[in-house]
Amino acid sequence: MTENKNNKKKLNHIAIAVSDVVQASKIWRDNLGCIISEVHKLPEHGVKVIFVEFSNIKIELLEPIDKNSPISNFLEKNPKGGIHHICCEVKDISKVKKNFAKNKIRILGDGSPKTGAHGNPVIFLNPTDTHGTLIELEEVK
Amino acid sequence: MTENKNNKKKLNHIAIAVSDVVQASKIWRDNLGCIISEVHKLPEHGVKVIFVEFSNIKIELLEPIDKNSPISNFLEKNPKGGIHHICCEVKDISKVKKNFAKNKIRILGDGSPKTGAHGNPVIFLNPTDTHGTLIELEEVK
Repeated sequence: MTENKNNKKKLNHIAIAVSDVVQASKIWRDNLGCIISEVHKLPEHGVKVIFVEFSNIKIELLEPIDKNSPISNFLEKNPKGGIHHICCEVKDISKVKKNFAKNKIRILGDGSPKTGAHGNPVIFLNPTDTHGTLIELEEVK
Repeated sequence: MTENKNNKKKLNHIAIAVSDVVQASKIWRDNLGCIISEVHKLPEHGVKVIFVEFSNIKIELLEPIDKNSPISNFLEKNPKGGIHHICCEVKDISKVKKNFAKNKIRILGDGSPKTGAHGNPVIFLNPTDTHGTLIELEEVK
């Protein structure tokens, strides 16, 4: 955490946007023997999700539910699919937000945390300010 | 591993291509308090690397050394930078290769493992056949 620089932070997940989560999950299950979840529908987030479980992290395969999904634009630009974002856990979003303001890193939307897919507060950093990588921060107490 | 479906596999790293690893590493160090490494030069792989250490995985920030670098094309298409690939550990590349052949997933290059940046055999799967995500497989005994 920022308040204790000797503690390593944890990456929560890697999100991959695809047009069909069931097809995409087969890459991992049938070729590499990975453990995959059932399809989870998250209409409030505009996506269907299959989790690919690793010993140290999970991949979230995301498929848009409709054209208003937050990943629909990404799939229009990347029709084959691709790695959409990575999510890093933080203990206190309000504390790290102060650093972003100081270092001129913008937060997407109105800047206030939203409730993420895991029920925790999340923000997304503007990838223009983070060398092209979309970074989600999830507050995990 | 494919030979034991009850064992979860491990993701080794997430590789992010950027034009300047030192600048990009500051996002993680100065804002989130992450632990970062020194710059490692890997001329045989055409890149400079800074590792961002998490408790469960590492990010490898990659900067091309010259225009012949394997990530130069990616940065021409994505000048801000972006997530380049993810690396999954496998016990035996020759065993998983049989699945890829069966499922018509192509391997980049001539199909034979090369020595990766960690000194282990690696292959990269053709992202056209893996829903747009570039997947590296690293043999870790």
